[in-house]
Amino acid sequence: MLMPAFSTRSVNVSDVSTYIQNNRQRYVDELVELLKFPSVSADSAHKSDIEKCADYLAAHFKSLGLEARKMETGGHPLVYAEWLGAPRQPTVLIYGHYDVQPPDPLNLWESPPFQPEIRNGKLFARGSSDNKGQFYAHVKGIEAHLKQNQKLPVNVKLLIEGEEEISSRHLEEFIRKNAAMLKADVVIVSDSAMAGPNQPAITYGLRGLAYLEVRVDGPNRDLHSGAYGGSVANPAEVLARILARCKDDRGRVQIPGFYDDVLAVDQRERDLMSKVPFSDEADRENLGVPAHFGEEGFSTLERRWARPTFEINGIFGGYMGEGPKTVLPAWAGAKVSMRLVPNQNPEKIADLFEKFIETLKPTTAKVTVKRYEGAFPSVVPIVGPYVEAATRAVTRGFGKAPLFTREGGTIPVVSTFKKVLGIDTILIGYGQNDDNLHSPNEKYTLDDYQKGILTSAHLLEEMAR
Amino acid sequence: MLMPAFSTRSVNVSDVSTYIQNNRQRYVDELVELLKFPSVSADSAHKSDIEKCADYLAAHFKSLGLEARKMETGGHPLVYAEWLGAPRQPTVLIYGHYDVQPPDPLNLWESPPFQPEIRNGKLFARGSSDNKGQFYAHVKGIEAHLKQNQKLPVNVKLLIEGEEEISSRHLEEFIRKNAAMLKADVVIVSDSAMAGPNQPAITYGLRGLAYLEVRVDGPNRDLHSGAYGGSVANPAEVLARILARCKDDRGRVQIPGFYDDVLAVDQRERDLMSKVPFSDEADRENLGVPAHFGEEGFSTLERRWARPTFEINGIFGGYMGEGPKTVLPAWAGAKVSMRLVPNQNPEKIADLFEKFIETLKPTTAKVTVKRYEGAFPSVVPIVGPYVEAATRAVTRGFGKAPLFTREGGTIPVVSTFKKVLGIDTILIGYGQNDDNLHSPNEKYTLDDYQKGILTSAHLLEEMAR
Repeated sequence: MLMPAFSTRSVNVSDVSTYIQNNRQRYVDELVELLKFPSVSADSAHKSDIEKCADYLAAHFKSLGLEARKMETGGHPLVYAEWLGAPRQPTVLIYGHYDVQPPDPLNLWESPPFQPEIRNGKLFARGSSDNKGQFYAHVKGIEAHLKQNQKLPVNVKLLIEGEEEISSRHLEEFIRKNAAMLKADVVIVSDSAMAGPNQPAITYGLRGLAYLEVRVDGPNRDLHSGAYGGSVANPAEVLARILARCKDDRGRVQIPGFYDDVLAVDQRERDLMSKVPFSDEADRENLGVPAHFGEEGFSTLERRWARPTFEINGIFGGYMGEGPKTVLPAWAGAKVSMRLVPNQNPEKIADLFEKFIETLKPTTAKVTVKRYEGAFPSVVPIVGPYVEAATRAVTRGFGKAPLFTREGGTIPVVSTFKKVLGIDTILIGYGQNDDNLHSPNEKYTLDDYQKGILTSAHLLEEMAR
Repeated sequence: MLMPAFSTRSVNVSDVSTYIQNNRQRYVDELVELLKFPSVSADSAHKSDIEKCADYLAAHFKSLGLEARKMETGGHPLVYAEWLGAPRQPTVLIYGHYDVQPPDPLNLWESPPFQPEIRNGKLFARGSSDNKGQFYAHVKGIEAHLKQNQKLPVNVKLLIEGEEEISSRHLEEFIRKNAAMLKADVVIVSDSAMAGPNQPAITYGLRGLAYLEVRVDGPNRDLHSGAYGGSVANPAEVLARILARCKDDRGRVQIPGFYDDVLAVDQRERDLMSKVPFSDEADRENLGVPAHFGEEGFSTLERRWARPTFEINGIFGGYMGEGPKTVLPAWAGAKVSMRLVPNQNPEKIADLFEKFIETLKPTTAKVTVKRYEGAFPSVVPIVGPYVEAATRAVTRGFGKAPLFTREGGTIPVVSTFKKVLGIDTILIGYGQNDDNLHSPNEKYTLDDYQKGILTSAHLLEEMAR
């Protein structure tokens, strides 16, 4: 690839903005085309749609002037593309995913999930916000630079995977194997939400996850609760007693050592959070709960973003059908998970949980614990040249400075990038909290798409030294 | 109906015994036919199977020479039959039920629940022991008399209901409305267990039942446990906390007032219990539990027969499928029941439970309690001519004198017969304690069936004056 002799700083960004403005309708049309692929990763019936979508993206990236290829992962392929024509400039790795959640229940969609429809300035389709519409904003920002100036202000690598909705099963291994190819200075991910309509946000923290299953085995078969009741330990009761001990009635997790590594929220973060528009009352209304419940001494946003949790995700045992059945169940189980915050380690937390369960085990039943894949929490520094560049780009793209937010959920790839490649990720959400991700009538605001494209274009420029 | 001029005492019982011996295989085949009806009363999908089973029984009773008919109850029908040709003799009312427990979990059955299979002298099928095989022993004993002698030694009324496994919902009203039709001198019920293999028993005490369902409702939809975890009450956790408070770790029920009306076991009863062959070690082995668990200060048999209990019969909520899913469930529920002993009252106990739950309710979620039909406990006198006649019949049928036992289960109709008709019930179990009632692989020992038929035939003879 030819090395440009002039500084990339000299790019005429106002021309790029004009280009984006002039191509607004075509950009929407192209996103509509992409959304027509039913690239549902969880459903093997859509395997060929996944392949076709990946092929389409690789071809499109090539048509823009990127080196691009579909790459095998052992599962669904990913699409990798790069432009490395700015050797003295930083390299930005942009991550996204082209796979989507299953569209069920179909009958609740107002327009078919893979026949995109624009209503009231919003584009309705599965994947519109999660994540095709968001990563495409970066693609179109890159396009604007390349079409207008035949070059980019920085080096860019695009990693668009096809398994995000199925736990990015093969991604960590892919990143390990292709660490040299993926080397970059900063990762940009747009797979999160703005702080509200017209209020952009940079998300600097995500929670991690430890997920386990507890099973209590009692008698070797379901027993008649009349014949045997009162004489053997009831596995559902043993389970309830164990789970009831995991948190106190003031919301504090009781696993010894659970909070040892938790980084406290400092005043600077509290100040940042206080700027985020949030109403406890509106939130209760939205969720239909009579009151919030959580760890004493923390606000609702702190509890969701910056404090670790213990939650029961599922509980089951004995008779679950209609009417009464007088059974003393042979076994009972629960799925539990703990959201983690810096500097908690999912393996260590799982160990502590298992050790705690060990102390709660009765001698009258068998208790076993099974672990699922965990994920590290991540918080990136909100100071430094890249975050500052991102802040300027967002401010220019949206006409408003971003708020700094955390999110309660987990994007495992963020901790994988840190762990494997040593790179921090900046999360710039172009979606909205009410975009119906994973639900019927997923939507994406076209104005956010347009401002996202502008932001992405500015970002490449601002990232340049 | 013609009145026989000769004394029914002149029946040739040895001919009846021979008839029973000669028809052993046919009697088994006919029971197999009856067991093929999936007459699951708790599941409305089986409504037509219930009807077909009742029709089959009514037709069969008629074919034996009884007056028989299917009768409506407001719920599932019952089958009533009678033979009243011995006017100077007592009337024996035989109660049984043709409905069965749901067969779930199906995958644990070695042979399908409604395709009866004989293995090792045992008949495996849902309902084989509870209760089709047991009441059919009486039907076949009656048949032997009628086929051999064209008459019975006493008057007989058969009441075979279709709602025993759903708390005999409509039976009490039916008995009240048909008190004249059901008038009798004694009730015989075979819906209990022998004291062991080759050890018949007459059961003189049963526990009662209070059955309730607790439901906890939290947010108006399943929430993402990352986005919302730690900030709202988790219904499964609220439920676990409530259930964990219902009993202490020494097996004592914590509902205030729960034990107030409990009659203590006296020395006479302890003596009767001590005659029952029972080994804690063999019992643990059989159940596959590392240790028993129950109220401190009572033996295993006392805990099962003479002490009240609190058991969780089912618990459910959130994600119960394979693998992890990070959901904060909208609701969770549990089915719970309390076995009651004299003189506890099921309505009063249900009231106490609801009152207790009221004190445990958090302000952060909605807790509701639903009641199912309850049942009174019962203990009958073990002296008097009918019990003595039953003792002789059992001794002749099984070749061994019965032990006097109580049972942990509930046969609500026993207290209803006493309350409404003023009649005592004698319980002669033809089942075994390890028959897997309400569990997969329910079974019935064919030798007990045969001896039960003999006992039933002798019983009719011994009951005659």
